[in-house]
Amino acid sequence: MTLTKARLITIITERVLRSEIITMLKEKGATGYTETEATGEGSRGIRASDWAGRNVKIQTIVSDKVAEAIMENIAENYFENYAVIVYLRDVEVMRGDKYFTT
Amino acid sequence: MTLTKARLITIITERVLRSEIITMLKEKGATGYTETEATGEGSRGIRASDWAGRNVKIQTIVSDKVAEAIMENIAENYFENYAVIVYLRDVEVMRGDKYFTT
Amino acid sequence: MTLTKARLITIITERVLRSEIITMLKEKGATGYTETEATGEGSRGIRASDWAGRNVKIQTIVSDKVAEAIMENIAENYFENYAVIVYLRDVEVMRGDKYFTT
Repeated sequence: MTLTKARLITIITERVLRSEIITMLKEKGATGYTETEATGEGSRGIRASDWAGRNVKIQTIVSDKVAEAIMENIAENYFENYAVIVYLRDVEVMRGDKYFTT
Repeated sequence: MTLTKARLITIITERVLRSEIITMLKEKGATGYTETEATGEGSRGIRASDWAGRNVKIQTIVSDKVAEAIMENIAENYFENYAVIVYLRDVEVMRGDKYFTT
Repeated sequence: MTLTKARLITIITERVLRSEIITMLKEKGATGYTETEATGEGSRGIRASDWAGRNVKIQTIVSDKVAEAIMENIAENYFENYAVIVYLRDVEVMRGDKYFTT
């Protein structure tokens, strides 16, 4: 069994940002993503019940380079004005070619 | 891009414990959390369908020290009498100050 | 607090495979699992909306050896004909005996 190291990015955000973040992920090189519904409460004191709908948790498996591009884009465009949580971790995948465009 | 190491705790538990666990997380120093609905089956042979409602998966990103306090609280208070799964892993975050109260 | 290293496997797949994958997990030695609903889009160009129902994300915590048996089973039986994402990562758990049958 051959496992390849990859990076799993998790983004938890307001539902209103869902489609533009997915578009950005693809532009940066992600070949897929998974989304699940989520609620929660963050350091900005924003509760899910105050929001226009539930939050969304978007996850994508990408190369190191693509991960960096995505993280930077989120930092630049969303951190100031939106409730966004983003974190990165290492995972091991089979069929690494599914996730890497290069 | 500056990434900070942090600990992501995942707690999967009976819905009845939801609010007291969230209260405990905050008391121990968590600045936020995310929750999603979950079902499942565990080593105690308890199936989701036998429970009073679905399970809940609660995740929080904290410092090492806060993670330890939370894990210990769960071990002391819930492991004996409740179906609780809890696990810990390392993640990398931007804006570490969002998650750490100290 | 004693933490044990374990492997967390995440499987994201078409709902139609749900029960046979859960059966396989148990046969290979998993003592439990958690499932959540998910949607998404993958490298095969299959969108959730084209599918017969939503996807399912199944997670289980197992030993290294059981993880390998599960990953190999998925590679052999599902990768060719189904939209399956599977990845592995290290986690730290309390009460390791809950997850390991040996």
